[in-house]
Amino acid sequence: MVYVTRRATFSAAHRLYNPELSDSENDAIYDKCSNKHGHGHNYIVEVTVAGEPRVETGYVIDLKKLKEIVGREIIDKVDHKHLNIDVEFMQGIIPTAENIAKAFWKVLYQKITEGTLYSIRLHETENNVVEYRGE
Amino acid sequence: MVYVTRRATFSAAHRLYNPELSDSENDAIYDKCSNKHGHGHNYIVEVTVAGEPRVETGYVIDLKKLKEIVGREIIDKVDHKHLNIDVEFMQGIIPTAENIAKAFWKVLYQKITEGTLYSIRLHETENNVVEYRGE
Amino acid sequence: MVYVTRRATFSAAHRLYNPELSDSENDAIYDKCSNKHGHGHNYIVEVTVAGEPRVETGYVIDLKKLKEIVGREIIDKVDHKHLNIDVEFMQGIIPTAENIAKAFWKVLYQKITEGTLYSIRLHETENNVVEYRGE
Amino acid sequence: MVYVTRRATFSAAHRLYNPELSDSENDAIYDKCSNKHGHGHNYIVEVTVAGEPRVETGYVIDLKKLKEIVGREIIDKVDHKHLNIDVEFMQGIIPTAENIAKAFWKVLYQKITEGTLYSIRLHETENNVVEYRGE
Amino acid sequence: MVYVTRRATFSAAHRLYNPELSDSENDAIYDKCSNKHGHGHNYIVEVTVAGEPRVETGYVIDLKKLKEIVGREIIDKVDHKHLNIDVEFMQGIIPTAENIAKAFWKVLYQKITEGTLYSIRLHETENNVVEYRGE
Amino acid sequence: MVYVTRRATFSAAHRLYNPELSDSENDAIYDKCSNKHGHGHNYIVEVTVAGEPRVETGYVIDLKKLKEIVGREIIDKVDHKHLNIDVEFMQGIIPTAENIAKAFWKVLYQKITEGTLYSIRLHETENNVVEYRGE
Repeated sequence: MVYVTRRATFSAAHRLYNPELSDSENDAIYDKCSNKHGHGHNYIVEVTVAGEPRVETGYVIDLKKLKEIVGREIIDKVDHKHLNIDVEFMQGIIPTAENIAKAFWKVLYQKITEGTLYSIRLHETENNVVEYRGE
Repeated sequence: MVYVTRRATFSAAHRLYNPELSDSENDAIYDKCSNKHGHGHNYIVEVTVAGEPRVETGYVIDLKKLKEIVGREIIDKVDHKHLNIDVEFMQGIIPTAENIAKAFWKVLYQKITEGTLYSIRLHETENNVVEYRGE
Repeated sequence: MVYVTRRATFSAAHRLYNPELSDSENDAIYDKCSNKHGHGHNYIVEVTVAGEPRVETGYVIDLKKLKEIVGREIIDKVDHKHLNIDVEFMQGIIPTAENIAKAFWKVLYQKITEGTLYSIRLHETENNVVEYRGE
Repeated sequence: MVYVTRRATFSAAHRLYNPELSDSENDAIYDKCSNKHGHGHNYIVEVTVAGEPRVETGYVIDLKKLKEIVGREIIDKVDHKHLNIDVEFMQGIIPTAENIAKAFWKVLYQKITEGTLYSIRLHETENNVVEYRGE
Repeated sequence: MVYVTRRATFSAAHRLYNPELSDSENDAIYDKCSNKHGHGHNYIVEVTVAGEPRVETGYVIDLKKLKEIVGREIIDKVDHKHLNIDVEFMQGIIPTAENIAKAFWKVLYQKITEGTLYSIRLHETENNVVEYRGE
Repeated sequence: MVYVTRRATFSAAHRLYNPELSDSENDAIYDKCSNKHGHGHNYIVEVTVAGEPRVETGYVIDLKKLKEIVGREIIDKVDHKHLNIDVEFMQGIIPTAENIAKAFWKVLYQKITEGTLYSIRLHETENNVVEYRGE
């Protein structure tokens, strides 16, 4: 078993806001992350796939293919977008880093057909990182 | 003469859009950077001050003071904000990296009283950087 | 289950020296790390907490709160200090990276009340890193 | 149990090519990675050893010793080399990142006598990383 | 005047060898960099263009255009190549970092039509960097 | 003219303290940097040499030689040391980043015999950097 990771980046706006709570409750929970007009990040996503390298190729999964899958299914849909408004698979989801990672997992899990999706690691800033392993 | 640099970060949303042009002209110029609901970045700003270290202290300017000035005059006003809407000193300015760097220079130039502001370097992404030296 | 990580930095001096051994034994074990007047590092600590994101907030633990806890319990006590002399919770502990990570775990474990402390990762230099998971 | 990691770098050329397949099959699988005259990378390898820190030293394994082992057994043999041609322990192995990591594991596993080899993590580029844990 | 920089990466093999000198002279000068079968690097190139941002766009040069120019004129020709053999504009040039930077300048200088090429900065490893400014 | 840079790192302790001032004056100027038992950093130093690449070698100065000079004249003398106590060429100098950079310049200037020393850039932390160019 080898774990192979492809790293990708995207730049997006978001706002942390739970529409079922009042504005003052949102302020209390999310503080400046709840700024009405949004803010944004250069997100870094690391997608890890686990599997046995094939004898013929030496690859678990060709990282060029993994790059294409991550690009088509994730990056093209979130890069230079507002995560609360522009992204279909984020509808109804509060875009915390935790929830974004889980949403990416849901999108990617069926698309990885060589090896098995092992982990989605998402860097929101250089100091804040989350990881979801489907547990 | 020694050049001292303080690095700081902020996370903001922006939209590249020139209101004097039509939507299709904006699309042609700014492409995905002109997305209606905005997108965002983790900006890194490097503020460089040039001067002679003082004999008594060995400092050009105490970097803790420079951190405070940059924090109060810049970071507090742009972090977790939408640069087109929420920032007074960016009103009427198309928030390209070039224009942000020039706006930061204008804000900071008078506030640096030990040494002289030499450069504003702004990283918009890990691949895109601009620098303004007041020239 | 999502793993959320907060990164923080501190700058400290230390000396690797076991007072129960002779100076020449210390030299043999620790070499230049046993320099009498100490040396120092910009340490990077990554604190990882594991848990289920709450439905209401989308957070395992608000990373601003985790930042405050790590700041108050760890960073304020070790930043710009000599780890062998100035830090109460390091008394009697040889400050190898391994032992520092374990000491941080002991300090933080009870303080994390949302989610569960999963890992302390400590970078002593860009080439030397340790991780402790309470095992 | 503490996990200690030593990071090292080396610069090498390689070519992805399976001699049991035709040139056109190799092109189909490896594309530009199969360029006849090779290409190269600044590889980063992270060697992680797991163990209990010794009471006397506070070390799982002295990272200076781990550096020497990794230097002598790996770096000296692959740095500024062509991995397909110049490296004895890579003979007959297609030098994908997956296979390199497994080969490094095989070389190092017997040489680590304090603690136990836990993981070989190999960065081929800033976007492509593999990890092997002997599973 | 604002300086805008686009960063790009490529992975290539090379060999430092002056065909007008003997093998032993080459060994004396280039040591392990003269390994017969070559070695390689993940090069990072930073292309800086200087100019006045246009009022209409706020751009010195659209960094997407600069990315395209650098991609088409440089990266497509050197990525996953052997610099001594596969690259037309490197023929007859010893591919030291200094000479590569100068060759890139020569290729790019005429192609940058908005603003003026100011600097080519080339990272060969994380410790070795060169810069050429056309002086 | 090409600018070639060699990066090196060292880990040292220091204390900011001017012995000609009282303790309370030192506290007022240096705050936590004046901690009695010192603190420390992983310093990064970038030494830049400017010159014309030689036709025969393609080098301004062989970066292996520059590494040796920086290692012998600087790193060996400051790594794992206390800058206020253990380093002869720092005697009587308050070890601010500004003063360290100037002291390194003074040590290195005569030792660089191919090309000319152009700049000493010193990173004290990831946020604080100074540069001295002999002006």
